[in-house]
Amino acid sequence: MSSLPSKTPQQTEVIMTELVLPNDTNMLNNLLGGRLMHWIDIAAALAARRHAGRICVTASVDEISFDKPLHLGDVIKLYACVNRAFRTSMEVGVKTTRVEDDGEVVANTAYLTFVALDDDRKPMPVAALIPQTEDEKRRFDEAGMRREARLRHRENIHTLREQLHSSHGE
Amino acid sequence: MSSLPSKTPQQTEVIMTELVLPNDTNMLNNLLGGRLMHWIDIAAALAARRHAGRICVTASVDEISFDKPLHLGDVIKLYACVNRAFRTSMEVGVKTTRVEDDGEVVANTAYLTFVALDDDRKPMPVAALIPQTEDEKRRFDEAGMRREARLRHRENIHTLREQLHSSHGE
Amino acid sequence: MSSLPSKTPQQTEVIMTELVLPNDTNMLNNLLGGRLMHWIDIAAALAARRHAGRICVTASVDEISFDKPLHLGDVIKLYACVNRAFRTSMEVGVKTTRVEDDGEVVANTAYLTFVALDDDRKPMPVAALIPQTEDEKRRFDEAGMRREARLRHRENIHTLREQLHSSHGE
Amino acid sequence: MSSLPSKTPQQTEVIMTELVLPNDTNMLNNLLGGRLMHWIDIAAALAARRHAGRICVTASVDEISFDKPLHLGDVIKLYACVNRAFRTSMEVGVKTTRVEDDGEVVANTAYLTFVALDDDRKPMPVAALIPQTEDEKRRFDEAGMRREARLRHRENIHTLREQLHSSHGE
Amino acid sequence: MSSLPSKTPQQTEVIMTELVLPNDTNMLNNLLGGRLMHWIDIAAALAARRHAGRICVTASVDEISFDKPLHLGDVIKLYACVNRAFRTSMEVGVKTTRVEDDGEVVANTAYLTFVALDDDRKPMPVAALIPQTEDEKRRFDEAGMRREARLRHRENIHTLREQLHSSHGE
Amino acid sequence: MSSLPSKTPQQTEVIMTELVLPNDTNMLNNLLGGRLMHWIDIAAALAARRHAGRICVTASVDEISFDKPLHLGDVIKLYACVNRAFRTSMEVGVKTTRVEDDGEVVANTAYLTFVALDDDRKPMPVAALIPQTEDEKRRFDEAGMRREARLRHRENIHTLREQLHSSHGE
Repeated sequence: MSSLPSKTPQQTEVIMTELVLPNDTNMLNNLLGGRLMHWIDIAAALAARRHAGRICVTASVDEISFDKPLHLGDVIKLYACVNRAFRTSMEVGVKTTRVEDDGEVVANTAYLTFVALDDDRKPMPVAALIPQTEDEKRRFDEAGMRREARLRHRENIHTLREQLHSSHGE
Repeated sequence: MSSLPSKTPQQTEVIMTELVLPNDTNMLNNLLGGRLMHWIDIAAALAARRHAGRICVTASVDEISFDKPLHLGDVIKLYACVNRAFRTSMEVGVKTTRVEDDGEVVANTAYLTFVALDDDRKPMPVAALIPQTEDEKRRFDEAGMRREARLRHRENIHTLREQLHSSHGE
Repeated sequence: MSSLPSKTPQQTEVIMTELVLPNDTNMLNNLLGGRLMHWIDIAAALAARRHAGRICVTASVDEISFDKPLHLGDVIKLYACVNRAFRTSMEVGVKTTRVEDDGEVVANTAYLTFVALDDDRKPMPVAALIPQTEDEKRRFDEAGMRREARLRHRENIHTLREQLHSSHGE
Repeated sequence: MSSLPSKTPQQTEVIMTELVLPNDTNMLNNLLGGRLMHWIDIAAALAARRHAGRICVTASVDEISFDKPLHLGDVIKLYACVNRAFRTSMEVGVKTTRVEDDGEVVANTAYLTFVALDDDRKPMPVAALIPQTEDEKRRFDEAGMRREARLRHRENIHTLREQLHSSHGE
Repeated sequence: MSSLPSKTPQQTEVIMTELVLPNDTNMLNNLLGGRLMHWIDIAAALAARRHAGRICVTASVDEISFDKPLHLGDVIKLYACVNRAFRTSMEVGVKTTRVEDDGEVVANTAYLTFVALDDDRKPMPVAALIPQTEDEKRRFDEAGMRREARLRHRENIHTLREQLHSSHGE
Repeated sequence: MSSLPSKTPQQTEVIMTELVLPNDTNMLNNLLGGRLMHWIDIAAALAARRHAGRICVTASVDEISFDKPLHLGDVIKLYACVNRAFRTSMEVGVKTTRVEDDGEVVANTAYLTFVALDDDRKPMPVAALIPQTEDEKRRFDEAGMRREARLRHRENIHTLREQLHSSHGE
């Protein structure tokens, strides 16, 4: 872990508001998945940059689930926040809501991993992230679980492929 | 499973070629993550549509890993293919390559889940997908593993949140 | 004034975060004025909509002053808020800042007038806006001054044109 | 005033024609205010550049009033022209019309201030603008009135803020 | 030929001015061919619409020759004009120039064929176009030559294909 | 002809798949001609680049005929292929189809000429293209006919203009 001064999740928060215009929709008048992903990616990159103090690039999209469709004319808000910092990478969570007259409805949750780049565009260590609230601690723990699940899954896939190769004499 | 005639993965294949233009890049002259996600989403949606014979919507992005950066001026190809059909959903795999003078280099692999919609925009059953080649069978098996890992992970998260709630007396 | 329940300026606030990408710049690598105006217009329209609970359309842009140039790669934030409600129109103020590592710098201030539309797309009365804080009261007063200055200026222009017409015997 | 050869307003005129496409509209099928502002800004910047012979940047938008809504499929024309040159700045007027089968209807009038930049991107003196026709002279005079009204208004705002500060002991 | 009142080429003229922004360029900082074609197509469609008084659709692009490259930051003008009306179709010529400080340089000439649509979106007869000036008459004649050359060429291609088919016993 | 190793047409083939989104349509919900031209231009430029191994620029659009309208929601495929290589230029053919459930329908055929650029952005010789199949040979021959027809037509136009000039004493 870097010797940089640690931060809290709240210090990394980024809020975006977007209006779904015709340019953003498909032929069902729904928000294009790829357009939402673009907004999620930008919001998450900015949250990572607030943590790292450097330009950050997307290493992976770990999970985006589209729970509620978003439509032409909807006002949507994106809340991005670093959930956990590892050595050179950070998990960022992005919650997307649809703004109604009487509040907001969660439409989508996304988790992405970002890496901070040094001047030679190589990954560089980032500061520690110290969760403060109960909710921040839960998200910190879940980020760890997601990471473990990913590593375990990759190992399983690797084993499967090895077996296939050996059974085929490759 | 629906009584529709089954298909093979190859029958669902979609090929896209894109040139990375200034409009697609960030201030490092790298392809914007969100732009690539948009292309991946379109290619995957079209592959799902070829399988289902219906308009399909993105249910989730399960994994996108950015292994090689893509740059201004790069020619990239996307190969999308349905890996496995479940009852109303399909896993689509998208491989992105950078075209070099002497061949193609894999830059990115993505897995997304799509759902076919009936005329009332409700999820509807899709035809079976029957893998033919060794490679198609491997992708079919891995799609099952990804699905299981996702379900297991969701359960773990659910258990963690339950524990948090009970320990707080909520 | 309408009999709708009044609101406070804070209840109308809209926050947008944007990253200046190549697509948004001119050949000096500065943010295009027109692109910034588009973001200002959207943020202001959403603030007006929060106040009126209806879709609102831009009646006029009353003042936008570009004090600091914004550049490729800058992270900018827009804060929009209704300053004052008249009978069917609202003045919205939008402050644009550039996000630096150690805080935000104001780059731009804009004032726009919006009108709420009823189902026949005719202007309709809006609720009262009751400023609470010192700052909100100042903005409320300044909105009145801007309106008066505008009306007075229009009258002067009108008089000038009348004089021209009469001196030319038209 | 610079020693550059003076120009007439007509020598600075820029004409743009645009077709309102779906990409340019909101969910009411009206032209987006921000899109029109972008076109106005480009037309005005080009008129300023014709006068100054240099790249010019937007210093302020002084007034845009949206008198008639513009719709999907409308053909619109923009006429931009420098109204008056000050020392390093220029007022540009932009008239927007909707083209009908039997003529054009004025939909919008805008006034913007531009500044010419030298090679170090500092404001530089511009040539004199000598109005020729009655109409050009009227626009020249009105530009002066707008400028005065702006300066007077800024002073009033300044006074108000001073009073607020002193009454609060700041 | 329709019984509609005839028009002159000049009555159909459309002038567009565009600034080449980063969004419009390729990785050589040249204007994208496809972007220029888009502008040419819009300008030509509007000229055809001025002649026909109806929405017109592109039937063919007959010739576009790119004589001078256009670059980031260039100001370009497009002049579109109907050259000749046939029964239901019109040839539109579009000249593209680069605006220099001391005049304009022709960068590109394009010829397109448009068809006017009736309310059922079927081709409908258009009014006669009566050239007035020497230049308009030359363009009228050349439009006829282009049409003849196209028809002759299509016949040659047809003959070639027939020969191929018969020599292969098809 | 260059001493570079020759290629076959198939080695230059580029396949693009596009979905017609609202952003790509006009007010009739038809694909914009200019948007299709942009896709055709990109596909053709990439095919030329595959042949030449260099960045290529559009020299001319020789013919695009729009035989079938394309609509919002259509899936379209573009097949680009070099038809014939001349000394420094190449003719590229692009076929556009609409993908139906039971196959593809040809909507459009286009022929463009590209030039390969050396490091000083001057035209440079390209390798020979050796057609293999009957179909490739036919396209090779037709490319020659198109070129001849173009040259003959230019000569005719040139003669016409000379006559006009002399008859006017210019």
